[in-house]
Amino acid sequence: MTTHAKLSGIREQMKTAGVSAYIIPSADPHISEYLPDHYKCIEFASGFTGSAGTLVITQEFAGLWTDFRYFEQATEQLNNSGYELVKLKVQHAPEFINWLHDTLPDKAVVAFNDRLLSVFLGELLEEQLADKQIELKSYDFLNPIWENRPELPSEPAFLIDEKDAGVSTAGKLKLLRDALYDLKADHQLISSLDDIAWLFNIRGKDVSYNPVVLAFALISADKATLFINQEKLSADQKSLLNKEGVLIKNYGDIEAGLKAVPEESTIFIDPKRNCFGLYKLLPLSSTFIHDINPTTHFKAIKNSTEIANVKASMVKDGVAMARFHKWIEEHIGKIKITELSASERLKQFRAEQEGFAGASFNTIAGYQAHGALPHYAATTESDAEILNEGLFLVDSGGQYHYGTTDITRMIPLGDNHSDEQKTDYTLVLKAMIEGSKTLYPKGTCGYQIDAICRRPLWDHAINYGHGTGHGIGYYLNVHEGPQTLNPTNIAIALEPGMITSIEPGIYRPGKYGIRIENLVLTVKNTINEFNEFYAFETLTLANIDTTLVKKELLETSHINWLNNYHQQVYDKLSPLLTTDEQAWLKQKCEAI
Amino acid sequence: MTTHAKLSGIREQMKTAGVSAYIIPSADPHISEYLPDHYKCIEFASGFTGSAGTLVITQEFAGLWTDFRYFEQATEQLNNSGYELVKLKVQHAPEFINWLHDTLPDKAVVAFNDRLLSVFLGELLEEQLADKQIELKSYDFLNPIWENRPELPSEPAFLIDEKDAGVSTAGKLKLLRDALYDLKADHQLISSLDDIAWLFNIRGKDVSYNPVVLAFALISADKATLFINQEKLSADQKSLLNKEGVLIKNYGDIEAGLKAVPEESTIFIDPKRNCFGLYKLLPLSSTFIHDINPTTHFKAIKNSTEIANVKASMVKDGVAMARFHKWIEEHIGKIKITELSASERLKQFRAEQEGFAGASFNTIAGYQAHGALPHYAATTESDAEILNEGLFLVDSGGQYHYGTTDITRMIPLGDNHSDEQKTDYTLVLKAMIEGSKTLYPKGTCGYQIDAICRRPLWDHAINYGHGTGHGIGYYLNVHEGPQTLNPTNIAIALEPGMITSIEPGIYRPGKYGIRIENLVLTVKNTINEFNEFYAFETLTLANIDTTLVKKELLETSHINWLNNYHQQVYDKLSPLLTTDEQAWLKQKCEAI
Repeated sequence: MTTHAKLSGIREQMKTAGVSAYIIPSADPHISEYLPDHYKCIEFASGFTGSAGTLVITQEFAGLWTDFRYFEQATEQLNNSGYELVKLKVQHAPEFINWLHDTLPDKAVVAFNDRLLSVFLGELLEEQLADKQIELKSYDFLNPIWENRPELPSEPAFLIDEKDAGVSTAGKLKLLRDALYDLKADHQLISSLDDIAWLFNIRGKDVSYNPVVLAFALISADKATLFINQEKLSADQKSLLNKEGVLIKNYGDIEAGLKAVPEESTIFIDPKRNCFGLYKLLPLSSTFIHDINPTTHFKAIKNSTEIANVKASMVKDGVAMARFHKWIEEHIGKIKITELSASERLKQFRAEQEGFAGASFNTIAGYQAHGALPHYAATTESDAEILNEGLFLVDSGGQYHYGTTDITRMIPLGDNHSDEQKTDYTLVLKAMIEGSKTLYPKGTCGYQIDAICRRPLWDHAINYGHGTGHGIGYYLNVHEGPQTLNPTNIAIALEPGMITSIEPGIYRPGKYGIRIENLVLTVKNTINEFNEFYAFETLTLANIDTTLVKKELLETSHINWLNNYHQQVYDKLSPLLTTDEQAWLKQKCEAI
Repeated sequence: MTTHAKLSGIREQMKTAGVSAYIIPSADPHISEYLPDHYKCIEFASGFTGSAGTLVITQEFAGLWTDFRYFEQATEQLNNSGYELVKLKVQHAPEFINWLHDTLPDKAVVAFNDRLLSVFLGELLEEQLADKQIELKSYDFLNPIWENRPELPSEPAFLIDEKDAGVSTAGKLKLLRDALYDLKADHQLISSLDDIAWLFNIRGKDVSYNPVVLAFALISADKATLFINQEKLSADQKSLLNKEGVLIKNYGDIEAGLKAVPEESTIFIDPKRNCFGLYKLLPLSSTFIHDINPTTHFKAIKNSTEIANVKASMVKDGVAMARFHKWIEEHIGKIKITELSASERLKQFRAEQEGFAGASFNTIAGYQAHGALPHYAATTESDAEILNEGLFLVDSGGQYHYGTTDITRMIPLGDNHSDEQKTDYTLVLKAMIEGSKTLYPKGTCGYQIDAICRRPLWDHAINYGHGTGHGIGYYLNVHEGPQTLNPTNIAIALEPGMITSIEPGIYRPGKYGIRIENLVLTVKNTINEFNEFYAFETLTLANIDTTLVKKELLETSHINWLNNYHQQVYDKLSPLLTTDEQAWLKQKCEAI
């Protein structure tokens, strides 16, 4: 069935239902970043496979709103699809709402599947279309035309022991209930899968890369109900959860659960992590507290068990990275290596490590010009052969029992690199070090660290279009909040125990891209008359190429940082390496 | 009349009126920073003379809520006043509202003079006290007990010619009306005196330091009415304003003007720059747009005439600063110099410059430990003698025809400075240079520049408790928005034409304080594949002491910046100096 035929099918239903515009968002009922196949609606309808976008369909027009990261990919994938690309001016901004407002007549009907739109977007639509008296309705126009629509996943879930989680589910529920009590909330609906995974010490395989399990949770002072496909849990697991104070119901029972919330309750709901449809099932007489889920904050502050386990995972990941890097160097020009085969080889090196449970995201292995696309993912069509020249960017990560990694390294090939490449490489390294070695007072937010990282690039009138870093889960999502390092004014302070990536880059479209990424842990540093100061402890353990470094662009403090880092990398990885590998790493970690 | 007697007088009236708590804010009906004497209510009631604070009085308690800048001063001035100091946790936060909420019983009556409270605070009070059904009323309990209350000022106003303003009032009104049209607003009430001064090219002497005139303005598509004490304007001036399309009415007619706004209008109102009382006179059927006055943004972007005039003022100010610095050096230890006499001498040097019209704020001349108080103002009681040792901080500025200056320099005395002083001095200088030489992409906000300035201090686990900089007016307020350099997440981008201060500091309580401040202009720098980049052009022209500089703490780029700056200072000031002064400045501007 072509996208044109699907579009006709949707438009037919729109006519019958009297709908002027149909919105297809990129989400599931849990407002996830990575979607189960069942919810890959945009890909089904339009062929576009990017992770961010919104389709809007009228009888006259069909468009995909997406951001600069996907302009090239969308142009290609939407070619002759019936959909036009609408370029977002501001990343993640709901600009399609303005378009609807300006395009539709008064009293038009706008529809969407209300399980696939966040409360935030639903309320924004209500608010911004109110003056034209536009009506919002919920329809799934895809299901009737979706032959062989994939089923919801039914992979088994598993529980993490208290000894590996650091805190039991009962302990976490107490923490959450204390927070809800302080907020005077009687009930909380949690739909976000990572919050649920953290709270119930539960993991699964329902989604690629993110080891989460499809579930909802409804929390009150005396009840904690987990709504989950019960086939995913063994009798033992159910009984373990019961002992922690958890009631288990079927995934589909969430609707009845919401309807049973008493009238005039005060309900806590995170508007960006719950869907509009379920929200609307809650009693109208409720008072709502709209805010970030308290668990999002708790989850970000890693406890000492989690930190110790992440550090152990970093050693494993570093060993795999060293072996991979060495393998590339030794085989380049001798066997055929492509972006995909290199990614596969890297996965194998990781898989050799005990406790490896899969990639933490789709590896970005970008050779030369492909490296200039920050979110490039090689396909069999794009897969480039890697030659013994130029630059190879590898951004990858693993899920381990227990810990999640995310690392970007540049592998320079051959020895004929341009001065521009060397300057860019050194500036990116300088920016990464600048962030990593920053001391900062308690209360410092991500946007401040972001500016400090960018300054060495700004000095050369260079910038990058993505954030400098993101929070990272504990055997959980590779992107997690609430902290983020980027230029927008998100006032979330960095706190001891948070793990964040630092990954500045320089992208020369058509030529190459350079990015270097480490994960860092916020730790207490010193208290004095001025404030309490925090620092970053670098967790990632992998050599950073020094052959392209132009020392004259670095200050002594950067050189010292790099040499100390390499000493640490060698000290921590070498006990796990063969003599041959040790010699290779020793040379890679030599002081500059 | 003692503060105790006044307190009794207030409490008596509260009882009669059935008022449980009375709020005395620090503001006038224009929500000004500097108040006419008529509105110095907190000083009258409590004796506290600081520029920021709120009094709250109940029958059992009377307190002053103020921030850390004034803790010392308030402790002293409130001693035996009947008022207790309540220390704010967060600067400018309305923490007294929480106190009222937690202290008062349900259905209590809270009163204040509604002409002295911003729309923002009024609505916050309504909102946060709603659940206790607390009633808000307006009373002036001060007037009945205020003997010889100062009259409102009636100094003459004057108009700035188009040739000195760059844009005529008619031109500015067109700009504003276009903005209101885009916002679909029919009317705008402007109460903020600097917005009015800019819009009508009018200045006055109604308030210390800020050359503004008390007035309100009501703007619609076809009318622009200025409400002003008509005695302040000559017949010629009135006729000039009429020609620019301005209708003139009496200051007191604003109430009638507001009541005459048609029902169901859409009214633009800046909630932080208008008072609650006047706002409440507008028709209830109106739709309100609450946002920053468009004029605040227009005013911040200086036009080429303004920039040229400011640069000329900077030369004058630099000459005065050089003469002052030289005078101190030559007279220290020979005649008695105190903080106040030095300030007076500096004012005289400025007054010798053509077009000088007064100080732009109360000079902060802080010797030794006084320098550690960022907002210190010497009084006859505190006035310290300046000896030939230690550090003397002078933060001062002038109003010129046309231009406003604001500069901080350190004058080291004697030659026995500690290593800590030298390190601190060098770090503050480094922070100032770091900001001054930053290239930054279009869209960069103040909080990003702020972080870049602080980094050199953070590296040494040092911080300062005030912002890094503020916008500055054109022969207008020394503090003006919307841009600001500080750590809070205020998303105002720096734009070409904005003038901002950069003034980092290090304060060692009881010992000394160091601050260095220049004014900088945002200018376009370069456009490339990454973005459009802006830079700062430093406007202030005055030598910066180099004798305390520890060169090893600076990078080459900082040293180059300083040497270039000094070359410019010398080149621009020396033509106006005597041979003797030239020789002195030459030596002060020598490259390090």
